[in-house]
Amino acid sequence: MTTVGSRRAVVVGTGLIGGSIGMGLRKAGWFVSAVDTCPGVQQLAVECGAADRSGFDDEADLGVVATPLGQVPGVAQHLLARLGPNATVTDVAGVKGPVLEAVTAPNFVGGHPMAGSEQEGLDGADPDMFQGATWVLTPTQVTDPAAFVRTSEVAASLGAEVVALEPEHHDALVAVVSHVPHLVAATMMSEASQASEQHAALLRLAAGGFRDMTRVAAGHPGIWPDICAQNRSAIVSSLDSLVAALLRVRHVVDSGRTDQLEQMLSRARAARRNLPGQAPPPERLAELRVIVPDRPGVFAQLTTLAGELGVNLFDMEVAHSAEGPQGVVILVVSGDQAPVLRQAISGLGMRRSLRRLG
Amino acid sequence: MTTVGSRRAVVVGTGLIGGSIGMGLRKAGWFVSAVDTCPGVQQLAVECGAADRSGFDDEADLGVVATPLGQVPGVAQHLLARLGPNATVTDVAGVKGPVLEAVTAPNFVGGHPMAGSEQEGLDGADPDMFQGATWVLTPTQVTDPAAFVRTSEVAASLGAEVVALEPEHHDALVAVVSHVPHLVAATMMSEASQASEQHAALLRLAAGGFRDMTRVAAGHPGIWPDICAQNRSAIVSSLDSLVAALLRVRHVVDSGRTDQLEQMLSRARAARRNLPGQAPPPERLAELRVIVPDRPGVFAQLTTLAGELGVNLFDMEVAHSAEGPQGVVILVVSGDQAPVLRQAISGLGMRRSLRRLG
Repeated sequence: MTTVGSRRAVVVGTGLIGGSIGMGLRKAGWFVSAVDTCPGVQQLAVECGAADRSGFDDEADLGVVATPLGQVPGVAQHLLARLGPNATVTDVAGVKGPVLEAVTAPNFVGGHPMAGSEQEGLDGADPDMFQGATWVLTPTQVTDPAAFVRTSEVAASLGAEVVALEPEHHDALVAVVSHVPHLVAATMMSEASQASEQHAALLRLAAGGFRDMTRVAAGHPGIWPDICAQNRSAIVSSLDSLVAALLRVRHVVDSGRTDQLEQMLSRARAARRNLPGQAPPPERLAELRVIVPDRPGVFAQLTTLAGELGVNLFDMEVAHSAEGPQGVVILVVSGDQAPVLRQAISGLGMRRSLRRLG
Repeated sequence: MTTVGSRRAVVVGTGLIGGSIGMGLRKAGWFVSAVDTCPGVQQLAVECGAADRSGFDDEADLGVVATPLGQVPGVAQHLLARLGPNATVTDVAGVKGPVLEAVTAPNFVGGHPMAGSEQEGLDGADPDMFQGATWVLTPTQVTDPAAFVRTSEVAASLGAEVVALEPEHHDALVAVVSHVPHLVAATMMSEASQASEQHAALLRLAAGGFRDMTRVAAGHPGIWPDICAQNRSAIVSSLDSLVAALLRVRHVVDSGRTDQLEQMLSRARAARRNLPGQAPPPERLAELRVIVPDRPGVFAQLTTLAGELGVNLFDMEVAHSAEGPQGVVILVVSGDQAPVLRQAISGLGMRRSLRRLG
């Protein structure tokens, strides 16, 4: 793995995620500066170990935007202008399409670490928050592969596994596994709470299952209006699907079709038990070398192809080829997942070779 | 607290809940016999500490029916006939209306411990499963107060807190906090799983929130067709309310009314944070003595009145009065909750006195 520049980072927005990234980067040997619109919080970030110093660092070669979603494009542009083209700037916003539409610098890499907690602010920050988590990166046609590789290394150094997805694809998927579940949890909690005004015993009956299901509703609500506004169509469409599915379940229950009900529940159970675990390190890695035409977007095409297949990127490298207007992309993936990715890449008509590592 | 008879129990059905009750009763000093339709499981119950011996115990003065819901009435009748009128028989089924309609013996007390896990069978059994849990009892017009008190003591000796509710009221409330949440979890898991067939990355993005929300869907599906059949109308009605609420949320998201969204999420958050905790022992208890007319159903009326107000019963006693055709019911409740219960009882026109304990 290549070294990560000067290892000076500036984190803008030191809440739960920004604070955790600051702590994690410091643990990994980085010198971290913290900026927050609230000067008190900026100072607190230093006091609680999320940064080495408060204030901007013009020497940083990594900028992390961890502000509320609505401020991300503006702050990212500011960082890009101030840190210059050799620095890499990334963000952690939960919706990526609008951000990547607004910020088109080659050295900006959209990111979304799929971790968090119902706690909030620096109080909940934890350097190990991203251990075993999936960290989505959203390269586009214009993304500089070197900036992508650097951001991947940062995510990996915090313990996360990188999955590359197109911004719009990311947004559609998180609507299903994050945004809509959050709205459902809040809605169920509201419904139960309203019913409990007439039935005081109701919440006494809320056992572990209900507590598990509504836990995310205890998180800070402030981020959700922005998320819902920016990912509106995917959320509405996913909510529509869920409501249609619930109405089918309602029909099955109402008509007493218990055989159908048990089938549905058995499928759900099998799926829940097969949820990918928290990233056990693969026993064997494989290195896939791909000769790629030297044109914009090929790197994003390759990495997001891997992401769409559910293939994590453990390491990657980009080299220019001695053979003229082409390059070599080296992707390190799990040995188990390599064949499916190799086949898909063949389908694109690119030359590739596979080598097992270790 | 009065002693609990001979402390010999027979548990019929030694799955997750029956096994846990057997273990808990043994830990509390009971001699436990285990019966299961599967002879191998019955023997296994002894081997793994859920029972002292396998087979029926005609000397038991407590019978616990922990079979699948559909078999509860038949097994309960069998136990009542075989153990006689001096024994107390209780069950743990998740729907109470149909059970209490079918089983009307005064010494049968319907019960539902609100605990469990996504594990199944004896493998998941745990003597401490009920520590801090709510254990609903559903007395009716015909319930013998002595049998109710005995069952309460059993629940309390396993670490649970007793809440008394009318059977139909229990069923309506668990539809909201247990049955519908379970169906929603399974539906969300199914939807995500189906979407993942086209989008392999989807389940890689399933972070802690989604995992929490779908955990219950990993449980054994076998119990749900019975539950849905027996509690059909309450489940359908609660599903309808939830779908209507989700459609309101969809409308708010679609119309970009972010102010309404944040209000809704803030209310849900406050409600989630105010969920009653896992039963901290109240600092002070209070004893409420009520002079009651000596007619059937008064005891059920008093205890379920407490339950409807969300008042836990820590201990209780029933005595006949020296003053003629009336009795005394003594309810021990949390000092904080006593005034509201006292007031409600006054509303019934009964004489009562309140004494703080400890």
